[in-house]
Amino acid sequence: MSTAAGARTLSQQQLELMHKYWCAANYLTVGQIYLQENPLLKEPLRPEHIKPRLLGHWGTSPGLNLIYVHLNRLIKDYDVDMIFLAGPGHGGPAVIANVYLEGTYSEIYPEVSQDEQGLRRLFRQFSTPGGVPSHVGVPIPGSIHEGGELGYVLAHAFGAAFDNPDLIVAAVVGDGEAETGPLEGSWKSIKFLNPVRDGAVLPILHLNEYKISGPTVLGRTSDERIEQLFSGHGYHVYFVEGDDPLAVHRSLADTLDRCYHEIRGYQQQARTQGLSGVPRWPLIVLRTPKGWTGPKAVDGVPIEGTFRAHQVPLEGVRTNPAHLKLLEDWLRSYHPEELFDESRRLHPALAALAPQGERRMGANPHANGGKLLVDLRLPDFRSYAVDVSKPATSYYSNTRPLGVFLRDIFKENAEQANFRYFCPDETNSNRLGDVFSVQNRTFLERILPSDDHLSPDGRVMEVLSEHLCEGWLEGYLLTGRHGLFATYEAFAMIADSMIIQYSKWLEGARALAWRAPIASLNLLLTSTCWRNDHNGFSHQGPGLIDTLLSRRGSIARIYLPPDANCLLSVADHCLRSRDYINLIVVDKQPHLQYLSMAEAIEHCRRGLSIWSWAGNAEDGEPDVVLACAGDVMTMETVAAAWWLRRRLPQLKVRVVNVVDLMTLYPPELHPHGLDRATFVAHFTEEKPVIFAFHGYQRAVHQLVHGRPNPARFHVRGYNEQGTTTTPFDMVVLNEVSRYHLCLLAMEHAPRLRHLTAPLVRECEEQLREHHRYIREHLEDMPEIRDWTWTD
Amino acid sequence: MSTAAGARTLSQQQLELMHKYWCAANYLTVGQIYLQENPLLKEPLRPEHIKPRLLGHWGTSPGLNLIYVHLNRLIKDYDVDMIFLAGPGHGGPAVIANVYLEGTYSEIYPEVSQDEQGLRRLFRQFSTPGGVPSHVGVPIPGSIHEGGELGYVLAHAFGAAFDNPDLIVAAVVGDGEAETGPLEGSWKSIKFLNPVRDGAVLPILHLNEYKISGPTVLGRTSDERIEQLFSGHGYHVYFVEGDDPLAVHRSLADTLDRCYHEIRGYQQQARTQGLSGVPRWPLIVLRTPKGWTGPKAVDGVPIEGTFRAHQVPLEGVRTNPAHLKLLEDWLRSYHPEELFDESRRLHPALAALAPQGERRMGANPHANGGKLLVDLRLPDFRSYAVDVSKPATSYYSNTRPLGVFLRDIFKENAEQANFRYFCPDETNSNRLGDVFSVQNRTFLERILPSDDHLSPDGRVMEVLSEHLCEGWLEGYLLTGRHGLFATYEAFAMIADSMIIQYSKWLEGARALAWRAPIASLNLLLTSTCWRNDHNGFSHQGPGLIDTLLSRRGSIARIYLPPDANCLLSVADHCLRSRDYINLIVVDKQPHLQYLSMAEAIEHCRRGLSIWSWAGNAEDGEPDVVLACAGDVMTMETVAAAWWLRRRLPQLKVRVVNVVDLMTLYPPELHPHGLDRATFVAHFTEEKPVIFAFHGYQRAVHQLVHGRPNPARFHVRGYNEQGTTTTPFDMVVLNEVSRYHLCLLAMEHAPRLRHLTAPLVRECEEQLREHHRYIREHLEDMPEIRDWTWTD
Repeated sequence: MSTAAGARTLSQQQLELMHKYWCAANYLTVGQIYLQENPLLKEPLRPEHIKPRLLGHWGTSPGLNLIYVHLNRLIKDYDVDMIFLAGPGHGGPAVIANVYLEGTYSEIYPEVSQDEQGLRRLFRQFSTPGGVPSHVGVPIPGSIHEGGELGYVLAHAFGAAFDNPDLIVAAVVGDGEAETGPLEGSWKSIKFLNPVRDGAVLPILHLNEYKISGPTVLGRTSDERIEQLFSGHGYHVYFVEGDDPLAVHRSLADTLDRCYHEIRGYQQQARTQGLSGVPRWPLIVLRTPKGWTGPKAVDGVPIEGTFRAHQVPLEGVRTNPAHLKLLEDWLRSYHPEELFDESRRLHPALAALAPQGERRMGANPHANGGKLLVDLRLPDFRSYAVDVSKPATSYYSNTRPLGVFLRDIFKENAEQANFRYFCPDETNSNRLGDVFSVQNRTFLERILPSDDHLSPDGRVMEVLSEHLCEGWLEGYLLTGRHGLFATYEAFAMIADSMIIQYSKWLEGARALAWRAPIASLNLLLTSTCWRNDHNGFSHQGPGLIDTLLSRRGSIARIYLPPDANCLLSVADHCLRSRDYINLIVVDKQPHLQYLSMAEAIEHCRRGLSIWSWAGNAEDGEPDVVLACAGDVMTMETVAAAWWLRRRLPQLKVRVVNVVDLMTLYPPELHPHGLDRATFVAHFTEEKPVIFAFHGYQRAVHQLVHGRPNPARFHVRGYNEQGTTTTPFDMVVLNEVSRYHLCLLAMEHAPRLRHLTAPLVRECEEQLREHHRYIREHLEDMPEIRDWTWTD
Repeated sequence: MSTAAGARTLSQQQLELMHKYWCAANYLTVGQIYLQENPLLKEPLRPEHIKPRLLGHWGTSPGLNLIYVHLNRLIKDYDVDMIFLAGPGHGGPAVIANVYLEGTYSEIYPEVSQDEQGLRRLFRQFSTPGGVPSHVGVPIPGSIHEGGELGYVLAHAFGAAFDNPDLIVAAVVGDGEAETGPLEGSWKSIKFLNPVRDGAVLPILHLNEYKISGPTVLGRTSDERIEQLFSGHGYHVYFVEGDDPLAVHRSLADTLDRCYHEIRGYQQQARTQGLSGVPRWPLIVLRTPKGWTGPKAVDGVPIEGTFRAHQVPLEGVRTNPAHLKLLEDWLRSYHPEELFDESRRLHPALAALAPQGERRMGANPHANGGKLLVDLRLPDFRSYAVDVSKPATSYYSNTRPLGVFLRDIFKENAEQANFRYFCPDETNSNRLGDVFSVQNRTFLERILPSDDHLSPDGRVMEVLSEHLCEGWLEGYLLTGRHGLFATYEAFAMIADSMIIQYSKWLEGARALAWRAPIASLNLLLTSTCWRNDHNGFSHQGPGLIDTLLSRRGSIARIYLPPDANCLLSVADHCLRSRDYINLIVVDKQPHLQYLSMAEAIEHCRRGLSIWSWAGNAEDGEPDVVLACAGDVMTMETVAAAWWLRRRLPQLKVRVVNVVDLMTLYPPELHPHGLDRATFVAHFTEEKPVIFAFHGYQRAVHQLVHGRPNPARFHVRGYNEQGTTTTPFDMVVLNEVSRYHLCLLAMEHAPRLRHLTAPLVRECEEQLREHHRYIREHLEDMPEIRDWTWTD
């Protein structure tokens, strides 16, 4: 345990100025929560000065203000390149107060000017209809972290630090947030942070002891246990504790200096003498009272230092004169008249405490990463093409060529060091292992000779935590870099909520001209539900498609490439795109290949095409459309079309393959949505459409609502049926096998009823025979997937 | 750090027998992975004895086998009531081997008998089409934990231990799983475990150092750091380490004895002398080689003790005679001829090592919780009714009466101690605070006088981790108790993936007659998207409805009670139900009340009704149906109907309220689905339906696909538009306000076009005025929700 005692980082004068700056930030925080008029208390406080609806989180705010003021001092003293992540993001007014005081806020939002009008606006807009949201988030300059859904601040911080060797990311962790699983799982990130090429994260665990209505676990844990815990995680733990502001100022300043020197020391040592294990990075545990400097007690009930300070500690100030008086006393306790000069600007002596220009944490370009974005150097994806001379006649792993493409992306961008690949320990299993010929898995702990492509220098980030993979990538992208997160389809749902929150961030960022576009979040789901026949039911879940379908059309993209060449084309497109969430779903196992590279490019450009080679309707109107989206679904559909061509040539069949799922949405819902004429040109106006869909079948009904005669879409997809079985049994269990598709097509072709009866019996017998085999043999059956197209 | 050295728990003879038992379990594990014939190696191994497709995870299995054998010994020596949770659930064949050896498996699956035929079947069925899944899961007796999606074993273990004072839950945590966020967030569960009334969890952290292709973080962390880490979490850490079987046997046996006495000591002390803080519960760190006793090396590459032992360490045994030889040597190294007698049963001296009857971990009734299920004593929910003399004329918090109902449920079931309520620190905020008049929040750490209803004896489980809430509840239910998990609607998505996995468990359990039904998983989502106007965009997300819609109809139920009385009726129904996942979505804020208790009961029984008082179509066919689901949506719809009645009486409007969303599904997809006639009786055959839906609007299109003329359903719902604003602005932003609904209704009543033009202008002007107000005032606006029905 370390507590800074002897050192004296601050002179008495500095100390007093910083204390005043802190008072200014606290004053502005309280003002945002309460005041709609009389922002500088030039007159006695009256009920009509108070907002009619009091919103905001006071409890965490004085702590955030304290930290911000002290980091400003550190930045100025050592010219530090630093950004600030507020885990307790409910403390929005605190962070707004600080970026306002340092001047950044008014530069971006000139209507919130550095004068009395601006102050009034600052207060009135907070948590008010038409104003600014109550939490830290995308509209706040300097922020790359929304504080709504808790748990991701450290993951974001480390993502930001990777490949930013000079950057220090200060990450405040609230003790509420510290109870979440994703946050507890993030401490280990130092085992993946390389002091030679990465920056540093300085976690500040702010223990104010309470959540909204009860104590936190860490808040009530002894310092001794806390030190053991974080020493066990590998940190050097510093404690700064107290409720005497001046003593805490001194201790925090001294501690920050020590931490800073420790960080730079580790970096310098590693950069000049080489690595020697995981540095014992510093971590600060800051114990200060919740709602510090606020009302001590109200109506005899203690407030400061209890959970009751969490949100708005004084209610009813408009109607209760005693409470109004308490509020006025509270506000005046900061002596606003000493903080702001006659022009209602922060006093120059205080303003001088903030860093200048891009060193201000609100103006640091890392927190507006699009400003620093360097295009990825992409090799020509066409050179990784799989040779397809004739469709549906050869098998190949769809992801393997992508692995070679990724290998060369790593190679091409080695110097600019702005691409990483994140995966929960499944890179090889996902057939992307070619990357290992140029790139290693990152690991800072002990490495043994028997380990495989493991090194502190890797940029393949393998950790068995979808939360960390997603969170690191988000932090990496938000600071202006590029990446890809690949995972098992079913387990992508672990990070479902994070992806939703990230989409909300992107939606917000799009509305702000000052936020420069960043590289898209690319999600690659391999090991899909249809080919987790070996892993069984728990590994089968295509739900992330549904999550993405509910996102705004301006953000979400879903691609289901049917083969390797389409995947290459889609991946190239996604890696060039900006501000999207691109979901790519494709299986890793060997699958039939359909399109040459030239055909694949055209197919992906359109988003869907008629595969005339597979149907028999030529250019005419078909009797039935067989549509498909997804690799396994494409095989079953093509096989069904093949069977129908041979056995029922009278039935005119058209095969449509969909690679860009959003083309099905009406154009007013998604920019990729086909216009009516193009939709009809593919799916006809009223002919039955048998749709074999990779995901939950009813999602397609969402998509085609509003299209001509949507009731004619008969969709089959993953229907929550599965176990450890064969790939073909999976499509049978979910009633989307080629035989099921043929049966559906025949059912919807009543004019041929006189011909179909024996064919229906034949399909049904095939399925019965399959069920018999599965039930009776208890052994692996010959794989029907060896089927290929024959003329 | 503690290592057991001096003690000698085992005699040499016991030791040798236990080692043989371990060999038998290992032998059966390898047999399941490889053999389809010749199960006892009565003849030399030939290629045709080998399965054509080799699946399974060997790496973790010898460790699981070791632990199981030793726990058997402990159970027998001390008559322990113990269940076994295998976090590394990929080691399915190991757990199957053990429940087979102890006899449980054959009792439940008689075809897998205790003879050579049974052994052959045991081997052939594993991971084979038509056989048994590859992971630990619902078909395995003794299991309450699926090992597919990693991260939840400790949460399940603690949930099982709550209110089971005699039970010890042995929970094996793999070092892969230990990297996940949810698992790291679970260690703190001891801060919520009361030794007086709860059982104990004995975590065994099995560090075999590797995941599928790389080392684990903890596997490469020093013992010193690991001891610090878990001491920091509050555990007493024991290490058992080595690769010499006999030494490890001795050390593990001694350590288990010490842990057992420590657990019983803490319990006895707490139960006789009272609580004194959180006990330092024992935790065992077991370091043994991955794939221990398997091939040391293959083709010169080391296997045992490396990641290469993760799955099937010898591939190509059918075609490579050298590998076949290695496999045979490996199998014979266990000396099957000494393990099984001439009738091919486990040798009696070995069989005697297993516990008897329900002490066998595969037969412990806690792991088939429905067998122990005691009905909840439910007070009459009608007595909590809100008085509603006239619909839509008074406001009341919908959740508050439920809080009183829950209070009395706690009271009624205090003695049988089989109900808990789980919530991420928001019970009061969710207006359920009445429970605190009889029940406290559970907390074992230091409690201060200023704390609010905090006690070690509470059964309100508040922890800021949705993962823990959900996981604890699952463990509690699976062991035969009852509960409710309430959370913010948006943040329920954090546990989305867990809920999906749990649904898969329930789906599997339903197919097994021997699994007795358990109480349903009840999810209450309050603080919904429509009324997180104060918290903003990050707190707005109704996505869990979509997740539940994709579950099988046999499992999933979704209720959207419009008011307090309906919520009471729904809650009573859900708390009585079995084997479902019940999702209840209702907001906590004051809302209009519509139905008397008698009406509410009838409405909920039907699942949906025509609210004739709100419409003007009497019994006739309406021009338009205004349908709604959800509290806020109901208010907007009723207000729209009210406005239309007054301003456009020529338009015949019917109002339909949907409380049970699944009634909309066709009956072949969900048992609650209305038959065609009933559906038409509500929604007509072809009249336009304007549907105001609580969730993402397009979900309704999924539901009504297959219904007559589904294209006439015009749905509005949450459209990913939101910020910190007013409640009414939320419905305006998402275009589902009363004015939007009126506009839609008029748009779809072309025959009245001559009358509607001025009314359309009026609605549009209302909306324009609203937007003007919001944009220009930056202050709270008068709340339109003060609207009530007037005649």
